[in-house]
Amino acid sequence: MGGLENGATYNQNSVPSTNKTGLSPDSIINLDQGDPTLFEPYWRKMGDKCTLVIGGCDLMSYFSDIGNICWFLQPQLGDAIKGLHRAVGNAVTDGRHFVVGTGSTQLFMAAIYALSSPSASHPVSLVAAAPYYSGYKDQAEFLRSGLYKWEGDARTFDKDGPYIEVVTSPNNPDGAIREAVVNLGEGKLVYDLAYYWPQYTPITHPLDHDIMLFTFSKCTGHAGSRIGWALVKDREVARKMTEYMQISSIGVSKESQLRAAKILGVLSEGCQNLGTAASENFFEYSHRIMRERWESLQNVVKNSKIFSLPRFPQDHCNFTGKYTDSNPAFAWLHSKEDIDWESLLREHKIIGRSGEKFGADQKYVRISMFSPPEAFTLFLERLSAIIDITNGNVVGG
Amino acid sequence: MGGLENGATYNQNSVPSTNKTGLSPDSIINLDQGDPTLFEPYWRKMGDKCTLVIGGCDLMSYFSDIGNICWFLQPQLGDAIKGLHRAVGNAVTDGRHFVVGTGSTQLFMAAIYALSSPSASHPVSLVAAAPYYSGYKDQAEFLRSGLYKWEGDARTFDKDGPYIEVVTSPNNPDGAIREAVVNLGEGKLVYDLAYYWPQYTPITHPLDHDIMLFTFSKCTGHAGSRIGWALVKDREVARKMTEYMQISSIGVSKESQLRAAKILGVLSEGCQNLGTAASENFFEYSHRIMRERWESLQNVVKNSKIFSLPRFPQDHCNFTGKYTDSNPAFAWLHSKEDIDWESLLREHKIIGRSGEKFGADQKYVRISMFSPPEAFTLFLERLSAIIDITNGNVVGG
Repeated sequence: MGGLENGATYNQNSVPSTNKTGLSPDSIINLDQGDPTLFEPYWRKMGDKCTLVIGGCDLMSYFSDIGNICWFLQPQLGDAIKGLHRAVGNAVTDGRHFVVGTGSTQLFMAAIYALSSPSASHPVSLVAAAPYYSGYKDQAEFLRSGLYKWEGDARTFDKDGPYIEVVTSPNNPDGAIREAVVNLGEGKLVYDLAYYWPQYTPITHPLDHDIMLFTFSKCTGHAGSRIGWALVKDREVARKMTEYMQISSIGVSKESQLRAAKILGVLSEGCQNLGTAASENFFEYSHRIMRERWESLQNVVKNSKIFSLPRFPQDHCNFTGKYTDSNPAFAWLHSKEDIDWESLLREHKIIGRSGEKFGADQKYVRISMFSPPEAFTLFLERLSAIIDITNGNVVGG
Repeated sequence: MGGLENGATYNQNSVPSTNKTGLSPDSIINLDQGDPTLFEPYWRKMGDKCTLVIGGCDLMSYFSDIGNICWFLQPQLGDAIKGLHRAVGNAVTDGRHFVVGTGSTQLFMAAIYALSSPSASHPVSLVAAAPYYSGYKDQAEFLRSGLYKWEGDARTFDKDGPYIEVVTSPNNPDGAIREAVVNLGEGKLVYDLAYYWPQYTPITHPLDHDIMLFTFSKCTGHAGSRIGWALVKDREVARKMTEYMQISSIGVSKESQLRAAKILGVLSEGCQNLGTAASENFFEYSHRIMRERWESLQNVVKNSKIFSLPRFPQDHCNFTGKYTDSNPAFAWLHSKEDIDWESLLREHKIIGRSGEKFGADQKYVRISMFSPPEAFTLFLERLSAIIDITNGNVVGG
């Protein structure tokens, strides 16, 4: 799921990562949020191929497909989602119910609603293995629902009774490939697969879980559209997720659904030219961009005596047919010395998000890898300077 | 707010009001929901004037306007909303904060979140004068929030402490113009003004309340776009409403915002030609359609010895400069005999919604006035038949 969590108050005095007006040496760089605008040049290059035209009398009804459990899902979007998963090979879609949401954020809310029981005497426990996406806690807690209760780190969870475990894979913040950790009888699982796309991680096999959440934002970079989708095995769960969307927003904006359908369709088509001399496929393009950033960052961090990044082995990507690296959307920086990352970065005019917000500690910080190129370059320069200073301070350094 | 409430299970065996395949004498007519597709011909007639073109690289960021409290509001939409209220004269916008939502449904959720207090020992009471929109109760109750509690009819509410009263004006289901009824010290008001537009009611003055909700669905008929807006006096309330949207869906689909901006802009422009020989203004068109329907319905119902419709006096509409009738989006049929409307209508293959769902009793039923023309005609025929039968059954009749 997303990289723009509620916990993060938007700092109107800082230069946002979407700023296009150029940066000065004094600019604050906001790498707190994961606004994926760095893929914009690709879509610009595609010209009219992805242009959507909507007439004034189109899409007026609440209904999109009255025969479908998710009656507000535009059939074109359902088809495009199915086509894309088939082209990429990252998820099983056969026999699944498709539920569309206002981003995977709304779908997460819908999933925990669907998996809770109004007749239960206690709220169902909700857990995720630390470090976990900081948004889950906020989403679970902000309305003080009596249906579910945030219980924090799945690794230390030992309560009896029903629970929901969210499995984020690749994980936000640290990029790790994950499986469920609780594995008790009454558990239900929600897989948040926002980053299970070839630019971020090798696609090793099609996943086949009960509830799988995806989002247009992280797949193609179209965060502004607020389109997510769930692949759901159980009909009743799909119906209750649809009910959540019906009660909270009477469905999902149809213009955005149509646009997502168009762009995902173009993306799937492009997958057929993979590795040929034809125009570069989006996943190749975005993988290249992410890889370049990761190499630059790794080259800087390797000079540090105390800082490190997670390391992931290469794996075979069925999509590209090659062994590829992981290029997570966030860098999860660790310091072996006891520093407060968030404060240290702020001194150097960088906004990151402290590990504490992810159920870890302040020796970790999450940095968005999605910033505009000039912000990323400036970040690397400043991080180098921080490394020089901290290396100097290390005993014996 | 909307006419498609969650309480209403969508009946997949019935012919929906959006069905375009023609009706047979045996068809079930679904007048349960208020899907405003009857205004579609107007927008078709407008041709390319309202067509929206979106490039593949547009609108990719989460952010729309970082200097604004509601940072995901597209500035074009804010401008269009302001221009439309100015043209229609139905609401004060000067000095107001604008918050956009996924329909006014999401904004209602946001408003009760914003007006509740996480530090309070008890949930804030939520009330509306009966008959009230059936969706409020569902929205307030479905997540079992500890922040607010649905307490039903505002007229019988007498608890101490903070409360929120929703004032729907014109009211759904009965079309009445309303003011707050509780009027105690610690009350906060949310005005749901979905139907305060010239096609439904005379615009007597610009409203000037603390929180006013509007929706694109009922203004122009574009229900599928899921765009609503709130005009909010208090900065902190606007900030908390924005926070609700941030946590629950990280903003609102930008394609739909742009399209709403375009169409509301064309609508405002059209208001300048009001009453001239230039092309018919949307509000004149939609008023004419609604008026014709109401006259037809009134002509049928007046033959009944036991059924009646609410009657509203004409009032001066500042927008049209004329005395005009009310033409509510729903007919709120009453029977002076003790009948179960919903069952009676079902016997005649009409789906309406029982008064019981609105805090009234089964002698009332709500009927959507928004059905496609052929469904409306068939409804009138069947209602005539019901009236003939019930007149025959009336003692002395």
